[in-house]
Amino acid sequence: MIYLDNASTTRVYDDTVELMKKIYTTDFFNPSSTYKEGIEVKKLLTTSRETIAKHFSCLPSEIYFTSCATEANNWIINSGFKNKKGNIVISSGEHACVYECAKNLKNKGLDVRFAKLLPSGAIDLDDLLSKIDDNTCLISVIHASNETGIINDLPKISYSVKHKNPKIIIHSDGVQAFLKTTNDVKQLGVDAYSISGHKIGAPKGVGAVYVSSKIKLQPFIYGGGQESGQRSGTENVAGICGLANSVKIFSKNAINSNVKQIKEFAFNSLSDIDDIEILGKNAPATDYIIAFYALNTKAEILQTMCANDGVLIGRGSACSSRHSGNRVLSELGLTQKQIDGALRISFCPETTMEEVKFALDIITKNIKKLREHKIG
Amino acid sequence: MIYLDNASTTRVYDDTVELMKKIYTTDFFNPSSTYKEGIEVKKLLTTSRETIAKHFSCLPSEIYFTSCATEANNWIINSGFKNKKGNIVISSGEHACVYECAKNLKNKGLDVRFAKLLPSGAIDLDDLLSKIDDNTCLISVIHASNETGIINDLPKISYSVKHKNPKIIIHSDGVQAFLKTTNDVKQLGVDAYSISGHKIGAPKGVGAVYVSSKIKLQPFIYGGGQESGQRSGTENVAGICGLANSVKIFSKNAINSNVKQIKEFAFNSLSDIDDIEILGKNAPATDYIIAFYALNTKAEILQTMCANDGVLIGRGSACSSRHSGNRVLSELGLTQKQIDGALRISFCPETTMEEVKFALDIITKNIKKLREHKIG
Repeated sequence: MIYLDNASTTRVYDDTVELMKKIYTTDFFNPSSTYKEGIEVKKLLTTSRETIAKHFSCLPSEIYFTSCATEANNWIINSGFKNKKGNIVISSGEHACVYECAKNLKNKGLDVRFAKLLPSGAIDLDDLLSKIDDNTCLISVIHASNETGIINDLPKISYSVKHKNPKIIIHSDGVQAFLKTTNDVKQLGVDAYSISGHKIGAPKGVGAVYVSSKIKLQPFIYGGGQESGQRSGTENVAGICGLANSVKIFSKNAINSNVKQIKEFAFNSLSDIDDIEILGKNAPATDYIIAFYALNTKAEILQTMCANDGVLIGRGSACSSRHSGNRVLSELGLTQKQIDGALRISFCPETTMEEVKFALDIITKNIKKLREHKIG
Repeated sequence: MIYLDNASTTRVYDDTVELMKKIYTTDFFNPSSTYKEGIEVKKLLTTSRETIAKHFSCLPSEIYFTSCATEANNWIINSGFKNKKGNIVISSGEHACVYECAKNLKNKGLDVRFAKLLPSGAIDLDDLLSKIDDNTCLISVIHASNETGIINDLPKISYSVKHKNPKIIIHSDGVQAFLKTTNDVKQLGVDAYSISGHKIGAPKGVGAVYVSSKIKLQPFIYGGGQESGQRSGTENVAGICGLANSVKIFSKNAINSNVKQIKEFAFNSLSDIDDIEILGKNAPATDYIIAFYALNTKAEILQTMCANDGVLIGRGSACSSRHSGNRVLSELGLTQKQIDGALRISFCPETTMEEVKFALDIITKNIKKLREHKIG
């Protein structure tokens, strides 16, 4: 089986699994316990925090561990408003966890504004700037789109936004960008940046968020005061250490991977098929995602046919794959028919050219078969 | 090393670790993915939900998985107020995750009331009833105290509260009670009941909460719509399956364990030592916790001495062990000097009489040593 749905979730690295196994059975103590064994476990958390901080070029105290990026994004978006005053602006290309959270606030009567996307899939910066004002508290722009892989130019966005109103908190959902492009938070100009474990060979159920020491947020979960009082609850030690360990493995493997060539190959192979449109092809994008739609095919059927042939590919965000329609692709101006044909192939650093060649043969064969039989 | 701080956190069962390992490396697919492999993973969640529901005697659809009990308790307490109207009443014996969450709401100007404890450690039902009225939305009373192990009589509390105002939502933090006493939610008369993985041989980073289908809460985390839209975020599949698996192992082992005799032995051994007071000794309590204070000893030093002798015991809630004082023990009327001497021994179904005998010898020896040398 060839797995090319890594943007949805990844296999956990064997080395990380072994580390977690050790924590579950040997280093299982509560990091808040005051005896030596507890203090040693606490140190594991400290080391993990330092590892993540290194990748953001920030202070370890600016890293908060969460149960997932969805939680982290909810925390930041909910903190956007202070006493329900002012407004927040999010891009229309956000993942459901930013979009639905913001929509909930809007439904409660708060001033939430949505900035348009360009046909390339990137945020329309002019539209964003027209929507911010002196009362804007926060903006949120996804770093790499989970639907198309395109990368928003955060340094430019940050510069322009802060130029207009330096008080605005700049948040970015970095789930699909982490370790796949620059994540230096100073260079990106962001005040908050969320990541997730299960996209980079770490387990599900763990995430982290950079929050600049310059900004002050309300705690998300109250209790025993873990995570500097911002996110209480006994720490998911194995998950956190697993996240840090997989960050090391993924980033090392990424340097040696030929994902750039793989994406180029996939791009060229797909371009050779009739009536295929690659999404976001005119914008900078991560090497790890290639999304497209094939006219006159139903993605659902094509996905199943490929799966039956041993090739697993995705259909946009797994989170929204069971819902009808696709909000982000609609924003890009795709018709329902085009959306119905949209698929997403996504890689990990360990993906081989051989796997992708095989997969593209299968995809090509099945598109032809579908069209010949006029299924979909 | 003899580990008797299971109320703080437990070692994960080997069988659960193996199951989780399989999920990390083989069944790692996203449960929201529409291909067969994703659907199979989704089924694992369904089965896990059924396992937990069975232990609550509730519907699987009434179980929501969370990242921990702290999260679950925050969700329920925050949902207590509808449009900031009415009031909520919590017991003064709550874990920090209920207490601090409620205190935050009180600090925001909402009407939060605290019901007193009896000297036994149980809630003062008369005081609770005097504090509820027609505008009370929710009460929260811990099932088994994490500090003393005493069990609050939830059926009686529920009956009395509902008799006065049937609309009140009854919530209980069941972390220390789950699998250690009755958890039939109908029998207990609760509308919401939270549990945690790492107290019962499952990993940290996973919890669950029963929420009666009769009550409607606001979602806690917005996004992809997981957990019936109440708690979005890619499910922690390994953690959830690990929780369900450990529930099975723990409950099976609990039947065959002699924890009752072990607690009796510990109770008698401790009672034989001069100037020791066992906390909550006049109230029904779980077999898994025995808490006491030894006059003229400092628990911190005693804990370290015992740890050096290979016996790990706790000092109340690990979550609060690094803070000065102890809110719950103060509520019981203990003086600061008594609190300074307070320790908690806690068992798991696999704890042996031999281990406890050895541990109590060490504890007794060290109390004598401390007193002879007048340390503490």
